Amino acid sequence: MKTLITNAYILDMVGDTANIEKKDILINDDIIEKIEKDIDKNIEIDEKINAKNMLIMPGLINTHTHLAMSIFRGYKADKKLMDWLENAIFPVEDKLKPEDIYWNSYLSCLEMIKSGTTTCNDMYFGMNKTVEAINDTGLRAVVAWCIKDDSIKDKVEQTREYAKRYNKKNSKIKIYVSADAPHTCNPKTIKLCVDLAKELNTGIHMHLAETIEEETKIKSKYKKRSTEYLNDLNVFDVPVVLAHGIYISDTDIEILKRIKGGISHNPISNCKLSSGICDVVKLRKNGINVGLGTDGIGSTTTMDMFEEMKTAAYLQKVNTMEPTSILAYDILKMATIEGAKVLGLENEIGTIEVGKKADIIFIKNDKLHLCPDNDVCANIVYSANGADVDSVMINGKMIMQNRKMINLDEKQVMKQVKKIAKKLL
Amino acid sequence: MKTLITNAYILDMVGDTANIEKKDILINDDIIEKIEKDIDKNIEIDEKINAKNMLIMPGLINTHTHLAMSIFRGYKADKKLMDWLENAIFPVEDKLKPEDIYWNSYLSCLEMIKSGTTTCNDMYFGMNKTVEAINDTGLRAVVAWCIKDDSIKDKVEQTREYAKRYNKKNSKIKIYVSADAPHTCNPKTIKLCVDLAKELNTGIHMHLAETIEEETKIKSKYKKRSTEYLNDLNVFDVPVVLAHGIYISDTDIEILKRIKGGISHNPISNCKLSSGICDVVKLRKNGINVGLGTDGIGSTTTMDMFEEMKTAAYLQKVNTMEPTSILAYDILKMATIEGAKVLGLENEIGTIEVGKKADIIFIKNDKLHLCPDNDVCANIVYSANGADVDSVMINGKMIMQNRKMINLDEKQVMKQVKKIAKKLL
Repeated sequence: MKTLITNAYILDMVGDTANIEKKDILINDDIIEKIEKDIDKNIEIDEKINAKNMLIMPGLINTHTHLAMSIFRGYKADKKLMDWLENAIFPVEDKLKPEDIYWNSYLSCLEMIKSGTTTCNDMYFGMNKTVEAINDTGLRAVVAWCIKDDSIKDKVEQTREYAKRYNKKNSKIKIYVSADAPHTCNPKTIKLCVDLAKELNTGIHMHLAETIEEETKIKSKYKKRSTEYLNDLNVFDVPVVLAHGIYISDTDIEILKRIKGGISHNPISNCKLSSGICDVVKLRKNGINVGLGTDGIGSTTTMDMFEEMKTAAYLQKVNTMEPTSILAYDILKMATIEGAKVLGLENEIGTIEVGKKADIIFIKNDKLHLCPDNDVCANIVYSANGADVDSVMINGKMIMQNRKMINLDEKQVMKQVKKIAKKLL
Repeated sequence: MKTLITNAYILDMVGDTANIEKKDILINDDIIEKIEKDIDKNIEIDEKINAKNMLIMPGLINTHTHLAMSIFRGYKADKKLMDWLENAIFPVEDKLKPEDIYWNSYLSCLEMIKSGTTTCNDMYFGMNKTVEAINDTGLRAVVAWCIKDDSIKDKVEQTREYAKRYNKKNSKIKIYVSADAPHTCNPKTIKLCVDLAKELNTGIHMHLAETIEEETKIKSKYKKRSTEYLNDLNVFDVPVVLAHGIYISDTDIEILKRIKGGISHNPISNCKLSSGICDVVKLRKNGINVGLGTDGIGSTTTMDMFEEMKTAAYLQKVNTMEPTSILAYDILKMATIEGAKVLGLENEIGTIEVGKKADIIFIKNDKLHLCPDNDVCANIVYSANGADVDSVMINGKMIMQNRKMINLDEKQVMKQVKKIAKKLL
């Protein structure tokens, strides 16, 4: 199937500075085949999309989330992390049925698409139902069964089974191994995860140094920092996505410089739970890839990556007390191509380039809060929000057009999730 | 004229905890006349508004802005404050014509209304054209001519003239005196502003302790902190709105405890310009009113108070490292009734109560990113954005309905502002 996008102002996210040009884009099935001025209108086209008044850019990449947590939106908000987890979240999670996981995940997927995210990296339990929701909504995703010290066998089996099914060329879903976090996984568990990742030729997704309490716990138990703990267990032999990375020392940075993959920075979750501020500027100066993530709803309360972009910029500028420490274009890179590198998908997604998958979002430009457009990148990062995303294409297929989901029922999923919330909360 | 709002879930912002009830609201001209369950449908009504699927709350109050700066959106973003001001902003400001001020202000007014703000507090120059734009768009506002050490006479005369015209009962516009900031106003200028405010029986709007550089300058010049400097010049004899208030010591707090009015906290501007983090939690613990403000576009890049609410919450939680330090309802108070107190308008606006002006916003509730609604306040503060505001009533009159501005031309103002930007930038 051939799709032609015309009249597009394209922010391609290739290169070190912003490049915006008016060109046409020809898409062949899932692949961007041609980007040129005035592509011959006589060639046979199945679908033509007029992108007038639109800015086009690569779909946003959410590098760390827990899709099935949408039910917890605003639930017992404004609590301390351990109080919130132990008294609000864990007791309810135990009661989540597979069908609940499906609908909760489905809502998060739709919310992401509506706010311009085309790829996410998820870890949780009951992931077979989350994979189903991802498939049904058309999203691209990396998914992993979150392994802790208990109920390991089952999760290892499922990871292995799904990796065999999905880790193939052109699959929209990739399976990673997830070791939850240094403080919830003993050395034996972590070694098992590393071996499994090596066996399946895939990467590891885990939390790292999210709170000072966790870091203190590891230090007192193993006499080393959590980054060293993981390094000594050979975690960094395989590609990794390390969520949070707030408590990172200079010696940790020397270790992290050599990893494949990168850090997922979740600024809103880190603020909302008072975890701390990740020194993104320092990590990136040391050549470490940093992507952005929403974390799960509950700690974050929205899946809108535009909010994460803004908050990431604000936090770094006030943390360094230097407004030039991170620029709008840096933030856009983190949300696209750098996020793709964190997930090891930089050859498939993250830019608008010939040969890449057609994951494209259309941002409506003729709005009061985007006027005037002195600086397109600044407008997207600081002034736009998820509701400005007009249309979304994933893998060459239009999933949302003019803010209407195509063949996906928003009302139905809201009804289902409200029912689950009523039952469990 | 009688207006009846039915089927409304009302978050009235009265009291210390959230109160949400389904009631009808009867409005007589500009005043809320009755809030009751099932107001008799047989009474004569001119307009009936069905608020099904809507949450109703008081209009948001933006306690510090510079409306005419909309032209600077994203202009030379990511610069240091003095570099940005001196090399990007001041040279262009000198060229702004009255007509430019009108259209720039008009755009900011519409942008505010579209994102749920019904009252703002503005200071700039050429304010006669801003007042015109405010009147034409229907907003409620406090306005002031920003007085620095130069061109004082003209601004004093205009302040006096407009105060006589507008500072009357039931006027939607109130005139304040503005002394720009401690570091741009010498003692003579400040005394003159205090005398003028006393003469006109009004308040003073000024910047205070926005950056450490300003604070250092005052200290070296006057051997005192800027709050002490203002106190010694009797500024606090009159009601004040003090914008920013980042560099405030414990002795400053003792002074500020006694002021009428309060502090305007502008979290996004303070982050974006790397000014620092205002200790809102400490100020409020000491009984000082703290409202929220956007500052002018350029330093902030959007007039959306929902963004300010979120950022304020995130900053306080991560600054105190205590997630319970500020709650969603606290943030909502700051954006409504506490903001009204900062502007001395708490008897007119800030809550939905019988006898108050009908400044009411309608938030559309049936959206993916607001589902489920476990906690309405958390949803508004953390999950909603300006685009969720469906309708806006100011002074009993519908200004926006179903996201359409009533009798206000968005396209025209965007065209004008783009033209001005093209001419000047």
